[in-house]
Amino acid sequence: MGGDFGPRVTVPAAVQAVSRFPDVDISLVGDREAIELEMSALKSSLADPRRFSIVHAIEVVDMSDKPTVALRQKPRSSMRMAIDLLHENNADAVVSAGNTGALVAIGCYVLKTLPGIRRPAVCSLIPSIDKHLYLLDLGANVDTDAEHLYQFAILGAALSSAIDGTESPRVGILNIGKEEIKGNDQVKKAHKLIAADKEIDFVGSIEGCDLFSSIADVVVCDGFVGNVALKACEGTASHILSTVKNEFQDNWWSRCSVFFVKHCLNRIYKKLDPQRYNGASFLGLTGVVVKSHGNSSVESFCQAIGQAKKEVESNLVENIGKKLGAAV
Amino acid sequence: MGGDFGPRVTVPAAVQAVSRFPDVDISLVGDREAIELEMSALKSSLADPRRFSIVHAIEVVDMSDKPTVALRQKPRSSMRMAIDLLHENNADAVVSAGNTGALVAIGCYVLKTLPGIRRPAVCSLIPSIDKHLYLLDLGANVDTDAEHLYQFAILGAALSSAIDGTESPRVGILNIGKEEIKGNDQVKKAHKLIAADKEIDFVGSIEGCDLFSSIADVVVCDGFVGNVALKACEGTASHILSTVKNEFQDNWWSRCSVFFVKHCLNRIYKKLDPQRYNGASFLGLTGVVVKSHGNSSVESFCQAIGQAKKEVESNLVENIGKKLGAAV
Repeated sequence: MGGDFGPRVTVPAAVQAVSRFPDVDISLVGDREAIELEMSALKSSLADPRRFSIVHAIEVVDMSDKPTVALRQKPRSSMRMAIDLLHENNADAVVSAGNTGALVAIGCYVLKTLPGIRRPAVCSLIPSIDKHLYLLDLGANVDTDAEHLYQFAILGAALSSAIDGTESPRVGILNIGKEEIKGNDQVKKAHKLIAADKEIDFVGSIEGCDLFSSIADVVVCDGFVGNVALKACEGTASHILSTVKNEFQDNWWSRCSVFFVKHCLNRIYKKLDPQRYNGASFLGLTGVVVKSHGNSSVESFCQAIGQAKKEVESNLVENIGKKLGAAV
Repeated sequence: MGGDFGPRVTVPAAVQAVSRFPDVDISLVGDREAIELEMSALKSSLADPRRFSIVHAIEVVDMSDKPTVALRQKPRSSMRMAIDLLHENNADAVVSAGNTGALVAIGCYVLKTLPGIRRPAVCSLIPSIDKHLYLLDLGANVDTDAEHLYQFAILGAALSSAIDGTESPRVGILNIGKEEIKGNDQVKKAHKLIAADKEIDFVGSIEGCDLFSSIADVVVCDGFVGNVALKACEGTASHILSTVKNEFQDNWWSRCSVFFVKHCLNRIYKKLDPQRYNGASFLGLTGVVVKSHGNSSVESFCQAIGQAKKEVESNLVENIGKKLGAAV
C-alpha cells in the first residue's frame, strides 16, 4: 500500500482490477484501518467482497528508506509481508508502487534470484507506433558490469517470448553510437558476450533516438542509464503534450478550432498516455513482482495488476528458468 | 566539411550564415573541388564572395574512425586543419558536423584544455516551455568520475552566465531519484563536491523527467548518460510528432480538420523542432568549438554557426578561464 498516494489509489485500483479480471483475487497488504476506510467508500462498486482479503501490516517502507533499512529494520512492513505471501505460495504475484530499491532488496532476500542470475532487473515496455520494446534495467542496478548486461539480454528475451509470443526476440544494447568503437568499457564487453551467444538474435547497438523505432524487441542497459532514459522520454512527452495544449488555448481561433479536432487530440493523448504502460517487471526473481510508478493513477495501477496477471498466466518465471538452464 | 551530408549541407549553411550575420566571415575547410561545386550552384545567393575562403584538405575523418586514428594518422584532415586555423588565430571558432570523439581528441591535442580542466565536455541546450537549460556532458567522456562532474558544473555555469547573462545559474546533477541515497558512486561523490563549492548555486539531483521543467539552468552528467538521454528526448519528440501527423491523416474528417488547426500545428512543430537547438559547445578548451548534429539540415547547421558566434562575442573562453582561476 505504498507509492505517493497509498491506499487512496491502490484500493480503488484493486477494486477495478477485480471487476476487470474475473479470475483475479486480491490480498491488500497494509494498514487495515486505512484500507477498510477506502473499501467502505467504494462499497457500491465492490463486485464480490469475498475476492478481497486484508493483511494487516504495522510498518511502512518509506520512499527515502535505504534498502538495508527496509530489509533489516522493518520485518513487518507491508512490502515485506506482501513478498512473504508470494514466497509462501499464498499469492501468485506482488504489485507495489513503493520504494524500488527496497523492493529489489526484499525480493532478492526473500524470493532469491533464479539459478545463475546475479541481480534482478527492472524492465518496462516502451511503445512505438506499431509495436513496442522492452527496456531493462531501469534502476535495480546502478553499477552494471558486462555479465549483468548479458544476463539482462536473456531475461528480456524470455519476457518478450512469454508475453508477446515472439519466437526469436531481437535484442539490442543501448549505446551512444552504432559504430563498434562507441561506448564505455562495460558496453563494449557486453556487446561481445551477447554477440557470442547463438541463442540470442543480437541486433547490436541501439541509440536513444531509436527506442521508438521498432528495430529491436528488447534493449539492455545499465540501470542508471535506463532510468534516466525512461524518465527523459516521459519528460519529453509531457513537455510536448503541454505545448500542444497551450497552443490550442493560445487565442480565440485556436480555442474554437479545438472543437474540430477534439477526437484527434483525445486519440493522441490516449495513445501517448504513459499511464497506459504502467507496470515494470522485476525479472530474475523466483516469483512475479511488478513495480507500479509511484505516482500512478487508479487506472494505471490497475494496468500494473494486469501486467502481473499476464506474467503469471504465461508462466514467465518458469520460462525464464528454462532459458537460463540452456544459456547460463 | 564532415557530417552525414558533407558540403551539400555545410556550404549552403555557410552562405546562409554569412547573409544572416553581417560580421561573420567563413573559411570552408575540405575538398576544394567539392566545395567549389556547391559554391557555384549557390552563386546567385552569394552575398559577397570575399567573405569566404577555401582551405583545401586532402583527408577526411570518417564517422567510424577511432579518435587515435584521426589524431595520429590523418594530420591533414579537414577537421585537423580547421582546428589548426583556430589554434593559429586564423579563425575565432570551429563548427563541425563530424566525428565527435575525433573532434574531442584533436581539440584537446591542438588547443589544449584550460588550466585545471582534465577533459572537455560537450554541452547542449534543452528547451523548456518558458526557458531552457544546458545539459553536459553529451558524449565526450564515457567513464566520468566525480571530479569530472564537478568540473562540468563549473563549465556549464560559466556558459549559462556568458550566453544568457544568468548571474547565479542553478546547477543540478542528473540522477535516478531526488533522495540522497539514490545514484551510483560517482554521482553521490560529485553531489558532495558540487554542494561544497559555495560559488555554485547547487539545486541537487534532477531526474530525467525534470529536464524540461525549468528547475535548473545547468544539469551535469556522465557523457554516456547525457548522450542517451538527449537522443531519447529527440526520439520521443519525433515519435510523438509522427503520432500527431498520423492521427490528423487518419480519416477524411481529421484530414479536413487540419485546415482549422494548421496554424496551431505549424507553431507546435516550429517550437519543438530539435534542429532549432543545434550546436553543442565543447567546453573546457582554449578555443570555441561547436559540434553540429551529424544529420543537420542547412538551417540547423546555420544555427550551430550562430552558437559559435555567440560564444566568441561573449568571450566565453576567457570567462570560463576567470571562473576556473577562482574555483579550481
